[in-house]
Amino acid sequence: MNLDIIPLHLGLSHFHTPSVAIEAMQEAVAQHQTFYGPNEGLPELRYALAQRYLEDDGVPIPAEQILITHGTKHALHLYLHSLLQPGDEVVAPAPYWFAFPELVRQSGGKLVPVPANPEEEYRLNVEELRSRITPATKLLLLTNPGNPTGKVYSWAELQQVAALLEEFPNLHLLSDEIYDGLGYKGPLPSFLRFESLRDRVAVVNGFSKSFAMSGWRIGYLIAPFPILEKAVELQQKWISGVSPFLQAGAVEAIRQRHRIWQQFRTELEAKRERVTTVLQKMPKLQFTVPDAGYYVTLQVDRCLRPQDPASPFQLVEEWAAALKDQVGLEVLPATNMGMPGAVRMSFALPDDVLENALLRLQAFVS
Amino acid sequence: MNLDIIPLHLGLSHFHTPSVAIEAMQEAVAQHQTFYGPNEGLPELRYALAQRYLEDDGVPIPAEQILITHGTKHALHLYLHSLLQPGDEVVAPAPYWFAFPELVRQSGGKLVPVPANPEEEYRLNVEELRSRITPATKLLLLTNPGNPTGKVYSWAELQQVAALLEEFPNLHLLSDEIYDGLGYKGPLPSFLRFESLRDRVAVVNGFSKSFAMSGWRIGYLIAPFPILEKAVELQQKWISGVSPFLQAGAVEAIRQRHRIWQQFRTELEAKRERVTTVLQKMPKLQFTVPDAGYYVTLQVDRCLRPQDPASPFQLVEEWAAALKDQVGLEVLPATNMGMPGAVRMSFALPDDVLENALLRLQAFVS
Repeated sequence: MNLDIIPLHLGLSHFHTPSVAIEAMQEAVAQHQTFYGPNEGLPELRYALAQRYLEDDGVPIPAEQILITHGTKHALHLYLHSLLQPGDEVVAPAPYWFAFPELVRQSGGKLVPVPANPEEEYRLNVEELRSRITPATKLLLLTNPGNPTGKVYSWAELQQVAALLEEFPNLHLLSDEIYDGLGYKGPLPSFLRFESLRDRVAVVNGFSKSFAMSGWRIGYLIAPFPILEKAVELQQKWISGVSPFLQAGAVEAIRQRHRIWQQFRTELEAKRERVTTVLQKMPKLQFTVPDAGYYVTLQVDRCLRPQDPASPFQLVEEWAAALKDQVGLEVLPATNMGMPGAVRMSFALPDDVLENALLRLQAFVS
Repeated sequence: MNLDIIPLHLGLSHFHTPSVAIEAMQEAVAQHQTFYGPNEGLPELRYALAQRYLEDDGVPIPAEQILITHGTKHALHLYLHSLLQPGDEVVAPAPYWFAFPELVRQSGGKLVPVPANPEEEYRLNVEELRSRITPATKLLLLTNPGNPTGKVYSWAELQQVAALLEEFPNLHLLSDEIYDGLGYKGPLPSFLRFESLRDRVAVVNGFSKSFAMSGWRIGYLIAPFPILEKAVELQQKWISGVSPFLQAGAVEAIRQRHRIWQQFRTELEAKRERVTTVLQKMPKLQFTVPDAGYYVTLQVDRCLRPQDPASPFQLVEEWAAALKDQVGLEVLPATNMGMPGAVRMSFALPDDVLENALLRLQAFVS
């Protein structure tokens, strides 16, 4: 058998970049915005983002507090490098994005994972978070919506986190909100809403997921001024600012965000329904219906030893390799996301490809 | 007087990005190359660059040895961070690009400048370079063509550097060749031609200067494999790869480089002639006719105390500030480029603006 591989492991959707972003980018090129832009980012984009948080979250963010970066990973790197000192600890609910531990380590810190329970739908366990905070803890790192979980924290959960920050006045919080446009109940509140904590709260976000602009490499960092100023300085020293004509496209994407998000959501919601309906017929795979984004985290423990003594697979990596070899489905083992025994599977694929993938998954599991 | 400022201090030309690059980029967008690209860079661009060095320099560079970066500053940062250990010294002829000392420092090293003599047309002083090499010296950092000098090293000078490297078998060399398309005697030989040194020689380059694509943020690093692999890893961990549709534009720029360079050169050469003719009438300003690029380095010592006891200016910064205040010309003091008493002045401006700038300069100096 020589099957083509269906890539369910990737961190991107099948959506094309919204045409409004492309047209605005092309207009900027026609106007020769092909020269160096400001290191901090195009004023128009920083203002459009400030306007977004004012309109959607009701909070005034000075445009000067927003740094445009070469993608969200870059925003994370600049922030962590600006904040952390050697030996600092970063507490984060697990599972988490696989790049976090190394990004933290590269800035001299150490990630301290706090596993969330999928049987409680990855509820934020604030007591557990509190118990892991030590004098070395500098930062609490939230991902909302979650990757790979698709978990969206309730307002009550976020309030508990805010209360925790009040308890620990030296603790910072970073909220990675890169999937925030893809919430199935509508756009999500940003952690920036907790205005009294503004001197310790930062947000990273970007255009790769919510706007299907992964190849544009545009992200941003909103951080307290002393940290932001350091991040600005590092960006200037290490790399310089982002392409101005690409940023012109991002401006138009942000301005038309609600229409774009509505369209993506509608299509993704149908896929989510279809995937969960099919998965529910596979009792060996446990999963939680995602609140946002386009991943399902499948727990495959029941397909592995020791839960299934007859299984040929000890590790989830072996299961995933067989899934790829035997039926041509590539999924992402979540071991390095702090969730051994699980895989991340994307459903942001054209319908025919998704149906094909689900058939293959059924064939493999049964 | 309320003059508009003519910016002669900037590190970019007035040229527009070549239309072939824009068209190729737009074609890639039309084909939806708007998703994540490979971290190392688009294969087409890496192959086009390899082909360039094969055709122009006669040296086979594996495409796998070329890392596409978010601009040349980024290539420098990745290279220096991959090579240097704390305490390492980097010997570099001065003047040099102002970002070098901090880029070296950020990677744990220390820049050791070796001043070149403008009265010898910034000849490479190999004896002086040798005398600054200690057991702590890890790297020799050349800029060819020079910034701000516009100096192009002769083949004989480069051979002397190669011989120096043979003497010090642990010494690495980095050649920053970002202005290489703008040599007035035609394109420059790359230091990559010294094939026997390939395991210690790296090159950084990019599209900002020779292709007027400063806002595209595309550079590249060619380095020995162990260093390149580390740089690839850092790019993956810190930021991810460059926009694939922008790289598609760069492919076409490289393919049509000789036509593009010829056109830029022809126009810049006329400006260079005009500028040097006018400057020769200002004996208080000393300068060397550049071999490449669009800067003239003006020595203004004769306008400063103590050479001119009647001068109101002690420092070149004061002279430059007065130039801006009194006649609206902004130039770049070269103090932090390792050349106190000098300024960098760009002549890559539309003819009418350049004429206006030269009139203002004459008025100020006389």
